Amino acid sequence: MEPNQQVDTICAISTAPGVGGIAVARVSGPDAFEIVDKIWQGRRLAECESHTAHLGTVIDTQGKPLDQAVATIYRGPRSFTGDDTVEIAVHGSRWIQRELIDSLCRAGCRLAEAGEFTRRAFSSGKMDLAEAEAVADMIASTSRAAHRIASTQMRGHYSAHLGALRDKLIDLAALLELELDFSEEEVEFASREKLRTLARELHDEISRLTASFRSGAAIKDGVPVAIIGPTNAGKSSLLNALVGDDRAIVSSIHGTTRDIIEDTIEIGDYLFRFQDTAGLRTTDDTIERIGIDRSLTAAQKAHIVILVIDLSDTRESQTDDLAAPSIIYLNKTDLVDEGATAEAVGRVHQQYPRATVISGTTRSAETIGKLRDALTDIMDREADSGAGDILVTNARHVQALTQALDSVSRVIQGLDANLSGDFIAQDIRETIHHLAAITGDITTPDLLATIFSRFCIGK
Amino acid sequence: MEPNQQVDTICAISTAPGVGGIAVARVSGPDAFEIVDKIWQGRRLAECESHTAHLGTVIDTQGKPLDQAVATIYRGPRSFTGDDTVEIAVHGSRWIQRELIDSLCRAGCRLAEAGEFTRRAFSSGKMDLAEAEAVADMIASTSRAAHRIASTQMRGHYSAHLGALRDKLIDLAALLELELDFSEEEVEFASREKLRTLARELHDEISRLTASFRSGAAIKDGVPVAIIGPTNAGKSSLLNALVGDDRAIVSSIHGTTRDIIEDTIEIGDYLFRFQDTAGLRTTDDTIERIGIDRSLTAAQKAHIVILVIDLSDTRESQTDDLAAPSIIYLNKTDLVDEGATAEAVGRVHQQYPRATVISGTTRSAETIGKLRDALTDIMDREADSGAGDILVTNARHVQALTQALDSVSRVIQGLDANLSGDFIAQDIRETIHHLAAITGDITTPDLLATIFSRFCIGK
Repeated sequence: MEPNQQVDTICAISTAPGVGGIAVARVSGPDAFEIVDKIWQGRRLAECESHTAHLGTVIDTQGKPLDQAVATIYRGPRSFTGDDTVEIAVHGSRWIQRELIDSLCRAGCRLAEAGEFTRRAFSSGKMDLAEAEAVADMIASTSRAAHRIASTQMRGHYSAHLGALRDKLIDLAALLELELDFSEEEVEFASREKLRTLARELHDEISRLTASFRSGAAIKDGVPVAIIGPTNAGKSSLLNALVGDDRAIVSSIHGTTRDIIEDTIEIGDYLFRFQDTAGLRTTDDTIERIGIDRSLTAAQKAHIVILVIDLSDTRESQTDDLAAPSIIYLNKTDLVDEGATAEAVGRVHQQYPRATVISGTTRSAETIGKLRDALTDIMDREADSGAGDILVTNARHVQALTQALDSVSRVIQGLDANLSGDFIAQDIRETIHHLAAITGDITTPDLLATIFSRFCIGK
Repeated sequence: MEPNQQVDTICAISTAPGVGGIAVARVSGPDAFEIVDKIWQGRRLAECESHTAHLGTVIDTQGKPLDQAVATIYRGPRSFTGDDTVEIAVHGSRWIQRELIDSLCRAGCRLAEAGEFTRRAFSSGKMDLAEAEAVADMIASTSRAAHRIASTQMRGHYSAHLGALRDKLIDLAALLELELDFSEEEVEFASREKLRTLARELHDEISRLTASFRSGAAIKDGVPVAIIGPTNAGKSSLLNALVGDDRAIVSSIHGTTRDIIEDTIEIGDYLFRFQDTAGLRTTDDTIERIGIDRSLTAAQKAHIVILVIDLSDTRESQTDDLAAPSIIYLNKTDLVDEGATAEAVGRVHQQYPRATVISGTTRSAETIGKLRDALTDIMDREADSGAGDILVTNARHVQALTQALDSVSRVIQGLDANLSGDFIAQDIRETIHHLAAITGDITTPDLLATIFSRFCIGK
């Protein structure tokens, strides 16, 4: 935690940029009420009770009425930042928004930096660093699952989990210390075997958290899926069928944030990103090799690979060199007899024992339903595979966890090698240090600047 | 005014679409408190006082916590719509916004139509129709001048002005009625001459209002400016100099609302749109004729025409067939002697006596400053030329005013022709009717639907 030393009052538009029915400016800091009162015609806000809303008129930089507005008062520490805060709701024109901020700055505010309100909430102890980072994730989340992870983290579950790990590490250190204090008396308070078991448990837990990043990042950013298979196996028809009527909905939700992504589809609680499929789709015989190369690249980058096989295609299969698919779709069952389908199902089950095998035709809504279920089932399993309900989604955290994992591995090695407690205690302290960096118990102004600069202005 | 018969409760996101630090959903109608309480964990909102804000948790469609939120209570009639209203501020992710609206709709809300909150404010008598329309203009305004017009209209100055006109018309009708009642007694209560004077005054006022639409629309939408002149006169250099460092600021303000516009520049209180200048800029000798045609078209469409003349160009002037310019810029004074400049200034003053003549070089900041001042001076004069501080900006209003002008002209004709008071009174009633249509004293559901459908959702 950094010391709470807010000396100035900051302001910013907190609602989405652009034109809206209303826009909300947030003003927070020691002089919030006094500053807003300078540009406010109506009841004196400095005298109003916390958590009350007041109709009044905001004055522009020329001293003329700018807009009818509602000012809502939050007295510290009962505010988001912990400091005195005013939220001013105005009509949402670009001009009013800009003039309001100009007017506030002339009255004594400073324009807030990106994430500065949340940084102040962190500084005043309203939330720890992992919780503060979750605010940004929460705002960026585009699916129920991504939202749930961020929400869990924001409400402190993740921090509590890390806290429990740290308590166990402190226990381990205490046991070692006892051993040291009484070593000359040759009393063994905790058997080395017991310490080893404790250290291995910690190692496993940190390892699970670290490993959960692959699923966590996929859920947070959208799960990359590659549809691969020989030409004419029905890959593009499958993609169109999966996207279905959702295409319009999806584009209105997802906007234009990632130009590279061809198709983003929300299925169940997850957002799936079908990558690089345009390349696959435009391939023809003369550039088939390029198509296959692209398939391979897409498959390697993908989180989930769907292999499409045309049962009516008598050519030799070219799929042996591909990455192991998660889902195998045996397509065009209507063109072959039931025996051939059953034989193919058996064969791919043997070749890819961990894959989900689905046979059918793309025209069938039932088949598409099964494929969609297979996609969400995979992600449901991954979402449950984390430590408790925790999935790590943050690259900074995974870096700290990897370092903690190294330290705790050295603890185990030290115990195995029967090293002196002094050496081992040092590694335990390091492990604690790395975990503490995640929640921000240990931090630096530079790190905080980096973290909060990724936030949007006004949050 | 339409009857206030809100039977259902409506909801919508009222802040700008997209991702923001916070987003605000507005819920308004007879069951606003009961519906929000269904998806709210925290203090029971139905029991809270008006104008108070409450921290709580919003529940999603699956009954799970969606987000920490602040609900602000407005009890009717002390709300924007006049009905009970709750404003719910949540973290501004797309997913939370969508889920919140879904959750509210499941709890009994209906998704609001565009402009429906403002329509309800109109229905409950919170504002008249001209004031309601000004809300939309206010939200769309992108310059101080456009904002001021909308703000004046929203605060009822325009309606008050129309009301004063109507009162005068009623006076006129009353005087005519007296004349009728006592006509057999041959007592002349008001001389026809006095009535004529009154009618002419009204005609002039309505005429000024109608004429103000040209300036009002230009200020509201951005003032179209055409820079014309012979090739190589320095038109594109002038445009670049006028845009100057403001270009970046302007594009961030104006966004991508009008693809056709090449350069939108904010100078002083106004937004100027330099139209079709790309066409002028890319012209070369082989397509010079096309360039000149485009100049003519741009000049005809423009509100302000700047004619650029290269003083060092000895070719015969081709500008005689152009629309009368508002500003004449005698460029490249550094390439000719002072006598030639003075002679040219005198000549163009004689040819275009109403134009502002500025001589100089585009490299000179002083010259550019004079040109910018000339642009804002023209608009300042126009802004003051309306009736009082009123400029008409709305096409519907100008249509009604034109009809009112027709009726009041018939009143004058009737008085001139010494027609019977009955006939004249009919035309006065018609004039009143047309003015009343502007403020919505007379209206139809179809008209209201058309007007409010142009609003954004959530307002």
